[in-house]
Amino acid sequence: MPNTTDTAHDTSSLKPDAAAFEALQNHYTTTKNIALRELFDADPHRFKHFSLEASGLFLDYAKNTLTSETMSLLCDLARERKVETRRDAMFAGEKINTTEDRAVLHTALRTPWPPSAGNRALVIDGQKIDGDVHAVLEQIAAFTEAVRAGKWLGYNGKQITDIVNIGIGGSDLGPKMVCEALRAYQHTELKLHFVSNVDGHDIDAVLSQIDPATTLFVIASKTFTTMETMMNGHSARNWFLTQADGAQESDLTHHFVAVSTNTEGVKAFGIDPQNMFPFWDWVGGRYSVWSSIGLSVALAVGFEQFSEFLAGAHAMDNHFRSAPLERNMPVILALVGIWQRNFCGSASLSIAPYHQDLGNFPSYLQQLEMESNGKRVALDGSPLQIKTCPVIWGNVGTNGQHAYFQLLHQGTDVTPVDFIAALAPSHHLPGHQAALLANCFAQSEAFMRGKTADEVRAEMQNKGMPESDISALLPHRTFPGNRPSNTILLQKLTPTSLGSLIALYEHKTFVQGAIWGVNSFDQWGVELGKVMATHILDELTGNTAPDKHDSSTNGLIGRARAALSGN
Amino acid sequence: MPNTTDTAHDTSSLKPDAAAFEALQNHYTTTKNIALRELFDADPHRFKHFSLEASGLFLDYAKNTLTSETMSLLCDLARERKVETRRDAMFAGEKINTTEDRAVLHTALRTPWPPSAGNRALVIDGQKIDGDVHAVLEQIAAFTEAVRAGKWLGYNGKQITDIVNIGIGGSDLGPKMVCEALRAYQHTELKLHFVSNVDGHDIDAVLSQIDPATTLFVIASKTFTTMETMMNGHSARNWFLTQADGAQESDLTHHFVAVSTNTEGVKAFGIDPQNMFPFWDWVGGRYSVWSSIGLSVALAVGFEQFSEFLAGAHAMDNHFRSAPLERNMPVILALVGIWQRNFCGSASLSIAPYHQDLGNFPSYLQQLEMESNGKRVALDGSPLQIKTCPVIWGNVGTNGQHAYFQLLHQGTDVTPVDFIAALAPSHHLPGHQAALLANCFAQSEAFMRGKTADEVRAEMQNKGMPESDISALLPHRTFPGNRPSNTILLQKLTPTSLGSLIALYEHKTFVQGAIWGVNSFDQWGVELGKVMATHILDELTGNTAPDKHDSSTNGLIGRARAALSGN
Repeated sequence: MPNTTDTAHDTSSLKPDAAAFEALQNHYTTTKNIALRELFDADPHRFKHFSLEASGLFLDYAKNTLTSETMSLLCDLARERKVETRRDAMFAGEKINTTEDRAVLHTALRTPWPPSAGNRALVIDGQKIDGDVHAVLEQIAAFTEAVRAGKWLGYNGKQITDIVNIGIGGSDLGPKMVCEALRAYQHTELKLHFVSNVDGHDIDAVLSQIDPATTLFVIASKTFTTMETMMNGHSARNWFLTQADGAQESDLTHHFVAVSTNTEGVKAFGIDPQNMFPFWDWVGGRYSVWSSIGLSVALAVGFEQFSEFLAGAHAMDNHFRSAPLERNMPVILALVGIWQRNFCGSASLSIAPYHQDLGNFPSYLQQLEMESNGKRVALDGSPLQIKTCPVIWGNVGTNGQHAYFQLLHQGTDVTPVDFIAALAPSHHLPGHQAALLANCFAQSEAFMRGKTADEVRAEMQNKGMPESDISALLPHRTFPGNRPSNTILLQKLTPTSLGSLIALYEHKTFVQGAIWGVNSFDQWGVELGKVMATHILDELTGNTAPDKHDSSTNGLIGRARAALSGN
Repeated sequence: MPNTTDTAHDTSSLKPDAAAFEALQNHYTTTKNIALRELFDADPHRFKHFSLEASGLFLDYAKNTLTSETMSLLCDLARERKVETRRDAMFAGEKINTTEDRAVLHTALRTPWPPSAGNRALVIDGQKIDGDVHAVLEQIAAFTEAVRAGKWLGYNGKQITDIVNIGIGGSDLGPKMVCEALRAYQHTELKLHFVSNVDGHDIDAVLSQIDPATTLFVIASKTFTTMETMMNGHSARNWFLTQADGAQESDLTHHFVAVSTNTEGVKAFGIDPQNMFPFWDWVGGRYSVWSSIGLSVALAVGFEQFSEFLAGAHAMDNHFRSAPLERNMPVILALVGIWQRNFCGSASLSIAPYHQDLGNFPSYLQQLEMESNGKRVALDGSPLQIKTCPVIWGNVGTNGQHAYFQLLHQGTDVTPVDFIAALAPSHHLPGHQAALLANCFAQSEAFMRGKTADEVRAEMQNKGMPESDISALLPHRTFPGNRPSNTILLQKLTPTSLGSLIALYEHKTFVQGAIWGVNSFDQWGVELGKVMATHILDELTGNTAPDKHDSSTNGLIGRARAALSGN
């Protein structure tokens, strides 16, 4: 079962006394009082020295409190942790997810077909990975083309107008985020809906907007047993059978398809196994939008643009595989994060997309990074003595400015920010785009520069303010500055650039996991709550009062029992 | 101008050597190794001792690592910081927002009319607060009734079908969150839309869904100069004039109303001042959903339910004003947060609503708490030596479980969680509600209890797993537990309970601000970025290349200029 004997790369935890780590700690001690303003003053070419382009994306990391020496020491750390060896093991299909004994091959989902010299065909445990991937892509292409062209008809002969994707976690966040991000590329009238929460208010709100005769449900669950998804799937099924005039169980095949590998479960539900889109155990949930889980994306934007989305990710894969660490964008993004987290001591990372259509990108990254690297033991089981993944959070740019940026500017903790913007918009409204970008750049400038008490005083004196007011307001209007950020620019938000952007963060996550020494591909931490929920559900709906838990849990269950029985 | 001479309450920062603070530090040192499991084992009535009910809400704070002594010391801290004095000063209309020389009277917006013995009429600077509030409420009632009853007609005689609220920050987050939360109480076909981001993709997506002849725009900006809101407002205005067949500027009055105090600006826009809904300088943006800013809420659910929403908040106000600190829900919620933040060292607080319709509640709280208390100097200008507001973040419950709860269970930092659930649903789908609540309670149980290595080993041995597998997997499947949470239960999510819930967090924020000694009602930290954005906007759209900034900002502006000129 678990394979912990792999010695090609380091499976132990990163120790605080590792040579490269200690060197960085010492370096931090000697540099921590240098202000970002000074770093910019000292090097007029700082922007050029700390920015790079890859696969159409531009990363500016100059507004971080780091120097060339910092980057050099961080690259030493990456080498000491054998990041490149582990990267190559991933791409080669080695079973680097040791606690589940699985390969990690979401990159194979976006490898062009047929194999070329640079992309050799993968065969693992007898499975011809690339060929299988390609066959499923053909299945997706044919199906989505039929639905989008209006050739796929509902049980009484009508065309499909609404798609409801039912899934949770990776089966929801990826397709939902990508469909929203590519809103400008949806050239049909098909309307996409997403249901994930087991809370009935979620599916209730969607069902009230749609017509069963023209709705297609995509039930996405690898095992077809995910509790939330199956409950929502069955509620949708019941709704269809009761609300669609004269519909029989045999009509379900026109309105339900599955993304799953459980043929028996899918058949029992009433779905034609021909309409089951499989994926594989080497595709983790949070890395699955490139697989059949992306079916809703392909329905929304068409297979051609879905292919461009895959190609954008593949371009970033190629960059990640081939670029030296010092000029490798995912590596640099990861190392800057390691610097912020493990040396500067930041507890969270705020994601600020200055693009409304990337509104769900912070939620997507929450799962990607926090589920991957929110771990406290290393691959080899040893407990970590340093911090791993920070909290990831955020919201679209100018909205955040009017909400929580106050704390980012003047709070007591320093929170790094990733700004993400697209230079060209997909709309034609005058004025908005320049205003948007001006705000984006101004925020990173303000975080970096701050405003000293002397600057504030001079400004207030210029306005002729009385000295008593000046001294009272001065501390409140002073900004410490020195708050770090990255800025990632896309030329435009397209299927291709979005693919590259997601892959950038996937590989960033990979590199950080490799440095910390954790398994970025399991998620044992979600198991305990699942088991406990099953027990509590029995008690909520059963006849005996609960008494097995602590008094708080017993008390909460008691209150809920009273309310549920009164319904 | 600034009034820092008020001595009725403490305007200095909380010092680490304050008596009550030191007592808590010592207490923490002696209790920090006690596990939550032990606390529950030691006191079978722990749930009863650490839970309370107020104004229809139930708060369980038993799953925090604290004892009766902790609570007693925390209440001492609140008394030492004169929280009650400051609370009474707020309700009495004293100008406690000293840096802006303003009273803080969002509570007056929800005080019943006419004044009674318990609610005396407020007159401040000659303004009859309660009377003015009541007059505007009558204006809101008449207007919303006309629109909802189909009596308010568009320029060519059609009824209104769509409302677009254009505002940002408090003029957006409050109405948007409340409208979503009260989705089940919208008994008309009126469809609500919210536009906030200056990014043109935001308004572009809304305009593509609506008909100018049947759309009413609510432009919400106190000064009618907010950059984002005015740009969106003017784009909406242009769109109306070009898309509505034969519409003249004089027709704007049928389709645009304002929430503002700038009569001249509103008139110049083309809005009839009769349709301007005012509010006052003693209503801060993030506390304004109870004012005219709630107009979209009243349009969505009707004035009667808007009144219930106000009444729910007022009930919590009364509780907050009258209950002793030890049984005062907002005070307790605040003190538990102070304990987590300043003694246990947590850097963020995760909000987990187990109710889909509260999906925007975490974003709302982000502004409420982080903009209020994300400060680093005290009211008197002295710098704080302790931490203030943590990062607030989160998402709806079962979705979070499948995304970032991994980190909450097994990450290296301890992040407290506020669970929020409603016992009774507003839908009729069988099974969902029990499953939802079971998950909610199971998560807090799992966070508290964890799973020891011995428990994991015994379970795996029972399943007959070979010893080599057990030892390899054991550390990955172990949960440290001891992770704190609160659970807040509503009987049902209604206008009344939602009002109480928001007021609970408002007063929690107030209490924490009073303890830290900051001004929770200003937001100087948003000014610097605004000024810098104005400069950069000139450079992005002007003729001269930028060179006034650091090389990073100059470089980013240069890239954007190239892209914008190519459009």
